[in-house]
Amino acid sequence: MPVQTLEYPKQPFSTVRRYDSRANYSLEQIHEIINTSLLVNVSFTVPDTPFPQTLPMIGQMGSFDRPSADTGDVLDLYLHGYVSSRIMNLSRKKDDEQKKPTSNEAAPAAAAAEYSQSESTGLPVTIAASHVDGLVLSLTPNSHSYNYRSATLFGYATPVTDAAEKLWAMEFITNSVVRDRWRHTRVPPNGAEMQSTSLLRVKIVAGSAKIRSGFPSDDKADTGDEGLLDRVWTGVVPIHTVLGEPTPSPYNRVNPAPGYLSDYVKGTNTYAAETALEQTTKAMGSKSKTD
Amino acid sequence: MPVQTLEYPKQPFSTVRRYDSRANYSLEQIHEIINTSLLVNVSFTVPDTPFPQTLPMIGQMGSFDRPSADTGDVLDLYLHGYVSSRIMNLSRKKDDEQKKPTSNEAAPAAAAAEYSQSESTGLPVTIAASHVDGLVLSLTPNSHSYNYRSATLFGYATPVTDAAEKLWAMEFITNSVVRDRWRHTRVPPNGAEMQSTSLLRVKIVAGSAKIRSGFPSDDKADTGDEGLLDRVWTGVVPIHTVLGEPTPSPYNRVNPAPGYLSDYVKGTNTYAAETALEQTTKAMGSKSKTD
Repeated sequence: MPVQTLEYPKQPFSTVRRYDSRANYSLEQIHEIINTSLLVNVSFTVPDTPFPQTLPMIGQMGSFDRPSADTGDVLDLYLHGYVSSRIMNLSRKKDDEQKKPTSNEAAPAAAAAEYSQSESTGLPVTIAASHVDGLVLSLTPNSHSYNYRSATLFGYATPVTDAAEKLWAMEFITNSVVRDRWRHTRVPPNGAEMQSTSLLRVKIVAGSAKIRSGFPSDDKADTGDEGLLDRVWTGVVPIHTVLGEPTPSPYNRVNPAPGYLSDYVKGTNTYAAETALEQTTKAMGSKSKTD
Repeated sequence: MPVQTLEYPKQPFSTVRRYDSRANYSLEQIHEIINTSLLVNVSFTVPDTPFPQTLPMIGQMGSFDRPSADTGDVLDLYLHGYVSSRIMNLSRKKDDEQKKPTSNEAAPAAAAAEYSQSESTGLPVTIAASHVDGLVLSLTPNSHSYNYRSATLFGYATPVTDAAEKLWAMEFITNSVVRDRWRHTRVPPNGAEMQSTSLLRVKIVAGSAKIRSGFPSDDKADTGDEGLLDRVWTGVVPIHTVLGEPTPSPYNRVNPAPGYLSDYVKGTNTYAAETALEQTTKAMGSKSKTD
């Protein structure tokens, strides 16, 4: 853990505007949400369509230069995934064009342009990941909510081409899926496998998290209504993800499942269940109204 | 269920290119993935930054005109969420500009422009949702994978302003979070609540799903290696989401939790666990290689 708590700078495109009391810019908080997500959603604009592309990928924050770096340090996002070089090139061109600020939005445009200028090698991507920790059931539909932890990161993605970094990232991502899996498989990958694996490294320029925890919060007009209180159940249904019993493949010969795997399943499930319960009873870092 | 299986048209921006044997364009399949997701990710471009915005929202496919429509019918996506009218307006302007096809990408640009032209009322949005059904652990890191069901939709979002449609959508979305919850709360919403609730309706123009199921699949060079088979555990760790024990709020007086809620928790958990196991043993609708 770094001595100081690091925060991402607030950019016009990264600042939480709705329920900003739920916002959190700490690197450690944001990175933890990303690193405990099974998938992240990677979005980027593509030419000739008004619709962004969104691809689910496996992603993990880490540092090739300082592999022992802590979750709260400045880290890169490593993605297991592929974006065509045509899109990479076209988007870089489009990014260059966008650097020219337009007249009537000068201030935010200038800020964004400055960022583009200094970091414009790579595909601009937005990364999103969310954990739903519970259904928040209140007296009225309007104050129903979720307990959740969501994170968004903004950065520039480039393919990992250096052989040493690629091998490191393959091991890093594999072990993020199941701790210690890498050395229990047939490694190192051969030349064809190295060639066919696509990895992206995202240099992060901004990020934010948004978190809601705790019990429901209803307006006084409703909590003062005795008939309503007698009739409507209020509370939280905690939610978490469960890894089930490892199910051997038809060609598996290793029985029972090895300890590193069953330990990982057990540990992950315990962490997930405990987190959901913690978020249920934790006071809200938020205004009283919910959505 | 419609008599015919309906499919979304393949557009340049919606066609699955990597592992296209895993692609699926059926409305029923795509809508089921969306409707069983706790959150969907809504992405759209914003002016003056190369980064798309991505917001997690609660979403549900349905039809205000034909509330009894089936999952496989043509449906709208209703989102509980807010996008500023500034972004709505600016993006519409930008969309108009994008209708002019550029010279060197004439064919896809023309197709996209045609779509924009016919549907350009609203904010162009890309919707993404994914279920991870299992960790697929094989002999080599490269053939490791997830079992997953992911869906992407493309459409035009507009705020729901009609009072009757808004009330219908509020009930529809509330009951999608917990079946039958609406009538067990204080309804109807009052004027201020109606006013403060933001809902979006997305007219869908294209969509796709991508699905991987089944056991790992390794190359023959590895499955023929006796030493490797004796050493590496292969199989699937099924994954699903679990709703925990409903935890009453400090002001709850309804004990025990009502039947509609405990039934919903039980039913949802059974469906989720069964689906993860089904996806574990189901043959892949896919080539042998994984990623």
